[in-house]
Amino acid sequence: MDFEKSDRNQVKRIPNRGHYDRETIYGILDDGFLCHVGFVADSQPFVIPTLYGRENDALYLHGSAASRMLRNLADSIPICLTVTHVDGLVLARSAFHHSMNYRSAVVFGTAVEVSGDEKERGLFVISEQVLKGRWDEVRPPVEKELKATSVLRVNIESASAKIRTGPPSDEPEDYSLQIWAGVVPIRQTFGEPDSDTALSENIKTPPSVLRLLRSGEV
Amino acid sequence: MDFEKSDRNQVKRIPNRGHYDRETIYGILDDGFLCHVGFVADSQPFVIPTLYGRENDALYLHGSAASRMLRNLADSIPICLTVTHVDGLVLARSAFHHSMNYRSAVVFGTAVEVSGDEKERGLFVISEQVLKGRWDEVRPPVEKELKATSVLRVNIESASAKIRTGPPSDEPEDYSLQIWAGVVPIRQTFGEPDSDTALSENIKTPPSVLRLLRSGEV
Repeated sequence: MDFEKSDRNQVKRIPNRGHYDRETIYGILDDGFLCHVGFVADSQPFVIPTLYGRENDALYLHGSAASRMLRNLADSIPICLTVTHVDGLVLARSAFHHSMNYRSAVVFGTAVEVSGDEKERGLFVISEQVLKGRWDEVRPPVEKELKATSVLRVNIESASAKIRTGPPSDEPEDYSLQIWAGVVPIRQTFGEPDSDTALSENIKTPPSVLRLLRSGEV
Repeated sequence: MDFEKSDRNQVKRIPNRGHYDRETIYGILDDGFLCHVGFVADSQPFVIPTLYGRENDALYLHGSAASRMLRNLADSIPICLTVTHVDGLVLARSAFHHSMNYRSAVVFGTAVEVSGDEKERGLFVISEQVLKGRWDEVRPPVEKELKATSVLRVNIESASAKIRTGPPSDEPEDYSLQIWAGVVPIRQTFGEPDSDTALSENIKTPPSVLRLLRSGEV
């Protein structure tokens, strides 16, 4: 189902790169775990990187209960969350037509602080987004840790995606130039896990990490 | 030289992760080419991914002369630009102590549209930031293309960096748990260049791309 187009979420530049359907937008959100959240405090915009997790039409964010950002966000102010995947450098024959292949999702909404069962659920959703299966491998949070943590739910009110794929698009007369053109793919990849030096020798790399390494990419 | 600490740029949560010196902040900016720029229009924050280039105490941004974002930004409104590098998943023995290794730089300033020589310089600076040496390999912009492009200079008025490195930090009593802990490194890597299908066969991969592939990482 599509998000309604409005002045807020409409992709104005190169509108054929814009997408408004949940499947496309949520696919981009589900491929990542780090967003840049924008909010306004005293007329000044702030853009802060933070982890997130999506469930249905909501994103969960978390942080210290003492966090200035989370206290600001929980105040029902309008926020914008953006997730971007860089897929490649698009190298054209002219400087002008250089570009980037990317997928970005821009989400608008307001945040509310959650508590009780939903608070624990939110933490689980964020954990699963970062590393599926990890939650069940570790010591769960105790009361004191839950108290020290705030969890916010951002209801996704409006959103859009912008996607560029494919080769460069040059001026017709430039195709005869003796200049290389093409795409250099960019990927986020995982390296070999670096075990904590305090780890006893008989503890093996857990299933969550093995799955991640098999998947090869973020 | 350090940026002065103020309410705007100060890292409040875990202050020992905060940095205010130009060397650290500019190092993070120079390691990337995509920022998330935040601005406010009609009380609504927007966070948009865009390319940038740094020269001295300024960042250059560019886009279509018809871009709503660039027109907004050029109106001397306060903006925030953030660059984040994700370096690893920090997997602790407890859910609570999971974290991320990262380097982020948050820059505050206002934008001015530039023209003439500085406009071309700005485009060169952005191009060099994305792919060093590419500018000299391609057809330079012609008058019509320059007219269709806006270039903004953001004077860096204030900035800070936040960095986390190293292994997880668990509760003392958790170190005896039979739970794997450590760091899974994350890197952005380049794949094999995908030559444009319209390329004549005798055009070789250019030095800029070969250098990039040798460097191995973004």
